[in-house]
Amino acid sequence: MVQVNENYLKLKAGYLFPEISKRVAAYTKSNVDADIIKLGIGDVTEPLPKSCIDAMSKALQEMGTLDGFKGYGPEQGYSWLREKISNNDFISRGCQISSEEIFVSDGSKCDSSNILDILGDHNSIAVTDPVYPVYVDSNVMTGRTGESLQNGTYNGLIYLDISENNNFLPELPKNKVDIIYLCFPNNPTGATITKAELKKWVDYANKNKSLILFDAAYEAFIQDNDLPHSIFEIEGARDCAIEFRSFSKNAGFTGVRCAYTVIPKNLSGLNSKSEKINLWSLWNRRQSTKFNGVSYIVQRGAEAVYSSDGKKQVKGLIDFYMENAKIMKIKLQTKGFKVYGGDNAPYIWMKVPDQMNSWDFFDYLLDKANVVGTPGSGFGLSGEGYFRLSAFNSRSKVIAAMERITNI
Amino acid sequence: MVQVNENYLKLKAGYLFPEISKRVAAYTKSNVDADIIKLGIGDVTEPLPKSCIDAMSKALQEMGTLDGFKGYGPEQGYSWLREKISNNDFISRGCQISSEEIFVSDGSKCDSSNILDILGDHNSIAVTDPVYPVYVDSNVMTGRTGESLQNGTYNGLIYLDISENNNFLPELPKNKVDIIYLCFPNNPTGATITKAELKKWVDYANKNKSLILFDAAYEAFIQDNDLPHSIFEIEGARDCAIEFRSFSKNAGFTGVRCAYTVIPKNLSGLNSKSEKINLWSLWNRRQSTKFNGVSYIVQRGAEAVYSSDGKKQVKGLIDFYMENAKIMKIKLQTKGFKVYGGDNAPYIWMKVPDQMNSWDFFDYLLDKANVVGTPGSGFGLSGEGYFRLSAFNSRSKVIAAMERITNI
Repeated sequence: MVQVNENYLKLKAGYLFPEISKRVAAYTKSNVDADIIKLGIGDVTEPLPKSCIDAMSKALQEMGTLDGFKGYGPEQGYSWLREKISNNDFISRGCQISSEEIFVSDGSKCDSSNILDILGDHNSIAVTDPVYPVYVDSNVMTGRTGESLQNGTYNGLIYLDISENNNFLPELPKNKVDIIYLCFPNNPTGATITKAELKKWVDYANKNKSLILFDAAYEAFIQDNDLPHSIFEIEGARDCAIEFRSFSKNAGFTGVRCAYTVIPKNLSGLNSKSEKINLWSLWNRRQSTKFNGVSYIVQRGAEAVYSSDGKKQVKGLIDFYMENAKIMKIKLQTKGFKVYGGDNAPYIWMKVPDQMNSWDFFDYLLDKANVVGTPGSGFGLSGEGYFRLSAFNSRSKVIAAMERITNI
Repeated sequence: MVQVNENYLKLKAGYLFPEISKRVAAYTKSNVDADIIKLGIGDVTEPLPKSCIDAMSKALQEMGTLDGFKGYGPEQGYSWLREKISNNDFISRGCQISSEEIFVSDGSKCDSSNILDILGDHNSIAVTDPVYPVYVDSNVMTGRTGESLQNGTYNGLIYLDISENNNFLPELPKNKVDIIYLCFPNNPTGATITKAELKKWVDYANKNKSLILFDAAYEAFIQDNDLPHSIFEIEGARDCAIEFRSFSKNAGFTGVRCAYTVIPKNLSGLNSKSEKINLWSLWNRRQSTKFNGVSYIVQRGAEAVYSSDGKKQVKGLIDFYMENAKIMKIKLQTKGFKVYGGDNAPYIWMKVPDQMNSWDFFDYLLDKANVVGTPGSGFGLSGEGYFRLSAFNSRSKVIAAMERITNI
């Protein structure tokens, strides 16, 4: 008799965003004329860069010819894309990351959850609180946690609080932790980390032989020249870190699907005999066996991000969303809201006023302003009392949403 | 100290196709003028159908406009694609599979390995021998087998032999098995299964509360009208089967990436208390958490497969490859080779002559005819003494390859 993976039954009901969709659907059903402005899910809204469209059009035409047709590509991604990534995102910043250390994929959500495939079941695991829910849920689903508690946390996970009290920078764990998820610029708080602060994490990890899973999906939004775009800008990171990067938020590829993961060739973990086992080889085997590469057409689109025009167009997108963020932050601050993030990330992390909780504020904003955001508590226990607004929308809608919120 | 997933270390060195590439590379290095014809990897060679290219071009242009831009789509796939699939591939054949039971993905290789995520660790698992290596390797990597034996099999897996002796149809297991992988039309043997024979498996599974993982990636190549294209043509299959389907081999999407998996809404497995747990819900949760859907552009291409022109163009591709298969089969038979498959599948499964083993024959064909095929032993112990030739190539190359082989 076929048995299921019971770990799934530990998951708290509903992934955050489906719950938001449900509440919005219920509201619009009884308020059919409501003109809802969505600043909830972190999904881009501007058209794709022209360079990417042109490159994909060309690739598509090739696929219609006998000579230009491409079947299965390398599971790791085409070398011409991996080389562009290596040169532009790493070598140019002084990070010695070779093209072979880059694995092209269809999304960072997939990579940051699939990475557990190559790691043992009994590692101790730390996440920040609040946190991108996929890190937690993928650990729950693979049996790396105990049951969930009443407060929404899971037994067995180590939670590192981030809040106003520590300027949204987690403290180093008191005890040894094997795997640590870090995300900077941070989703959901919009917080950043300096090179000096990140160096402390790299040193901690190398001292304790821990692995840092570093999510840099939002690096393109960094405005401050001193902040690191990659953990590999930090000395020692090649010995302790895997990095996730994405074309979703810089080039607007959320509906196109392309991302990549960086695993240094020298990176290793241990087997049960405490022998070093190379992690690059395990991931290479994982991808070769369980994945068939990213669409050729899409990879040509990603390559165009690194062309001269592509870079300008991507910068145009980033500037646009960051101007949105600026408008939002100033307007909310003027009205007296306590607001964080938004300077080097497309997310505004605001304190919920009047001792409301996050979901109350969600319903309140939906009802009074017809604006949808994301309740901070959906990202974890310490997100309670906060609320995330995303800068991904048209200028007019962003301005309208701010008017409505500040005029309640 | 971070621990790795040691199960990966049980894997036999080298996935089959990388080993083939290595040998071909070594041969061409010392024979630079060799004009190699590849009938090895099952990868299509003809251009994409024009309907698919047109639909993807249109989608691409939409993505360049503010109104037409699409960000994150539903993780399960767009409903317009799922409905087309439901109507054309199932309802039209009398199978009651609704659009909600279809999960669009980027590949059957991913789905057929990821499906283990929602299943327990202690199920007994049967695969045919020979078999598509991904079924075996994904079980090894997730710790569902013991160590590998000298002969290349793994402890803990149940192997169901398929050979000339049973007309390439596995016998029902003597004992209860929880999960059974079946693939028809079969990769690698090209064998098919009748409705009556498949009914025996469905009945076995329902009697024993087993789950059948049915891979129908090659259904489009079926020429015989009486053969089932889907396991859901068999009464009772909704209670015991998951089906994997792909656009790779019918519409030539191996480099475009689109596939789908069918999970009936009523399908269930058991938890450790022997309570029924719905498998559709678990997979829905898996995909929502660990996957971000298929490229919008690609899904529009897949939708075009079901247009009137798209259907004609896909039939043109299938007819072309099946004519290749016919040419190959007749030529090899005329020369006295024992040849199977090729009638309802794009694979020819031939007996290796003169008591050579499969890899010897691989090297022999590479050296004497400059033709690359796939050694049967790469698909399992019982594949030894066989050799797979694929019908995916141009007419002229197929004819040339057959001339060379029959003139050695």
